[in-house]
Amino acid sequence: MMDIIANTLIVCAMGTLPLTFEILHQDPNGFARSGRLSLAHGTIETPIFMPVGTQATVKSLTPTDLTDDIEAQIILGNTYHLMLRPGADIIEKLGGLHQFMGWERPILTDSGGFQVWSLGDLRKIEANGVRFRSHIDGSEWFLGPKESMEIQRKLGSDIVMAFDECTPYPATYSEARSSMEMSMRWAEECRTALPHNGTQALFGIVQGGMYPDLRRESLHAIQAMDFEGIAIGGLSVGEPKDEMLAMLDALAPHLDKNKPHYVMGVGTPADLIEGVDRGIDMFDCVMPSRNARNGTLFTDHGKINIKNAKYMLDQTPIMEDCSCYTCKNFSRAYLRHLFIAKELLSSRLNTLHNLHYYCDLMRRVRQAIHEQRWPQFRDHFLQQYRNTTI
Amino acid sequence: MMDIIANTLIVCAMGTLPLTFEILHQDPNGFARSGRLSLAHGTIETPIFMPVGTQATVKSLTPTDLTDDIEAQIILGNTYHLMLRPGADIIEKLGGLHQFMGWERPILTDSGGFQVWSLGDLRKIEANGVRFRSHIDGSEWFLGPKESMEIQRKLGSDIVMAFDECTPYPATYSEARSSMEMSMRWAEECRTALPHNGTQALFGIVQGGMYPDLRRESLHAIQAMDFEGIAIGGLSVGEPKDEMLAMLDALAPHLDKNKPHYVMGVGTPADLIEGVDRGIDMFDCVMPSRNARNGTLFTDHGKINIKNAKYMLDQTPIMEDCSCYTCKNFSRAYLRHLFIAKELLSSRLNTLHNLHYYCDLMRRVRQAIHEQRWPQFRDHFLQQYRNTTI
Repeated sequence: MMDIIANTLIVCAMGTLPLTFEILHQDPNGFARSGRLSLAHGTIETPIFMPVGTQATVKSLTPTDLTDDIEAQIILGNTYHLMLRPGADIIEKLGGLHQFMGWERPILTDSGGFQVWSLGDLRKIEANGVRFRSHIDGSEWFLGPKESMEIQRKLGSDIVMAFDECTPYPATYSEARSSMEMSMRWAEECRTALPHNGTQALFGIVQGGMYPDLRRESLHAIQAMDFEGIAIGGLSVGEPKDEMLAMLDALAPHLDKNKPHYVMGVGTPADLIEGVDRGIDMFDCVMPSRNARNGTLFTDHGKINIKNAKYMLDQTPIMEDCSCYTCKNFSRAYLRHLFIAKELLSSRLNTLHNLHYYCDLMRRVRQAIHEQRWPQFRDHFLQQYRNTTI
Repeated sequence: MMDIIANTLIVCAMGTLPLTFEILHQDPNGFARSGRLSLAHGTIETPIFMPVGTQATVKSLTPTDLTDDIEAQIILGNTYHLMLRPGADIIEKLGGLHQFMGWERPILTDSGGFQVWSLGDLRKIEANGVRFRSHIDGSEWFLGPKESMEIQRKLGSDIVMAFDECTPYPATYSEARSSMEMSMRWAEECRTALPHNGTQALFGIVQGGMYPDLRRESLHAIQAMDFEGIAIGGLSVGEPKDEMLAMLDALAPHLDKNKPHYVMGVGTPADLIEGVDRGIDMFDCVMPSRNARNGTLFTDHGKINIKNAKYMLDQTPIMEDCSCYTCKNFSRAYLRHLFIAKELLSSRLNTLHNLHYYCDLMRRVRQAIHEQRWPQFRDHFLQQYRNTTI
């Protein structure tokens, strides 16, 4: 294993691989670390939060909002949504996902596995993938490891995710094992279908339900396949918070330190802090953008619901000292009005703030690790976030 | 009459009136002119198009979009909508409409007359105003000249519109006369309720249906009342285009040249050109913003419907040489995708383009008048706009 890593690092240094990862600071007493991840479309700093751009757009925002105000360094695109509409072939003909949506920085695409799994009655899992009906028009599709790799190749993302099955919660030990074993077979097929190349990195995904030994078995299988990064899937699927953290605890000591670690679909600001503390470098979640559209706004002191009548005459911004466009220019009273009046600008200003908050929180995390005060930052943040009501 | 104007101009020059209007260039062979209108919150150049910001927001856009990309110099707010939600008292407590919505340039507010008139069965016209039920919650309200002036005073707009009745179309001569006469009585009450002051200008509104003599009678009545500007209402209410232009033709020679002329709720790009040609300085219309949300985009060569399948692989912008953010960054293929996928960004990028197109068209109009080539510009534009299909 160590030989493979050593070789990888040498080849990376020669510029022929699509990803190089450098650890800048390591918390001496735990797993938290900061790093630098270089990809085909640019370099990002970790730990990082990736805004979700499902249908070739982060809902309501332009690329300029994302770069200039939110300072997002990488965004996520959804293979399932893009394959159905406008279609991978169309995006390829239009120059790939970056050019199509006007985004010049790195993009990570998921495999579509989670979305088709979420379709419930509309999908049937087979040995080589999933047969499903489109939620848009009922048309029949098939998506497996080979198809997912081919679609993500057409999209041209910087980071491609392996196609896996998200193990349901709850699942028996036997269900979780067979689901995990299928995902490991599919992971191998993905690596074969998308071999090492100069532009697209491929991440394998650890499964195993809520069973620490299955999780570790899956991690070792993934780490043996020489992916450019390690993702942890099947979390944040309805399990209690302490079970999720227990899975991260079970994996943290065994994660290959030389590769980036990505926990998928997580989570609240507190979850991000807990994840960093367990060695996670990358996060994505629809929560900040989806909740924004529902009027829920994040602050260091917890969430606020902007439709609440108490904000009717409140001239203060969402969060004091926040440097986002929304907080610099508008009062809670105005944001409440926009939400109540169902104005389009409500979604936009709220999304701007929430994604700025998430990305800026990661910037503060990186700074704390850099300045060797991670434990203090973590404890102060969690105490303040969980124990204040505003 | 001339004495009054002369006095007005002198007082304006002393800075004690809320509006000064200076004509910069006059087309020697017609009514078209360019000018400079100074208001409490800044100076605007005419002819001008005013984007509509109904509920204290131009739908989907921020003030920064409006100033930096669209280069809007003044926007319009709707008294009817704002009085119902969030309420004039709340806006006054929050520092007025400018501060509430973060817009530092001039604002014109309408009187609410047109909106309550549009309520149909929900309203009853009485001698002193209109009793109506809110379209939001059915609550009962009363709005007349006094109430409208008081609400617009609380909103703090730079230009206040008189409260009038929009004469329905079609209307008999007798109906149009009595409606016009009521509007003239109400106009006097508005001038009394909002006397000359240092911050808010008041515009009177000409009515009279589609009867040239009633229109001229109304114009003379309005011009006798010493409003700071002259508006023409009751157009673009379903009448054929040539009837609308005939009314503007009937008024053009009689409009007080020293005051700004505003035709309300008009219209298409071609209507704006026809209006300028008849001495109109100011326009507002929901068309560019509302049509944008429906996928209709304006160009010099007519309208395009972005949902059309022929744009699926079209890598060109909406309009070549357009300098708006949308055209500089995105293809028709991407805009079509956003529209079909019902993405929030679709409304925003489309609105950005359409409002930029309207405001930039007025900039080109001013330049043509300035460079003494108005007739050529007008003829070329109308020929190109009406005779091309794209």
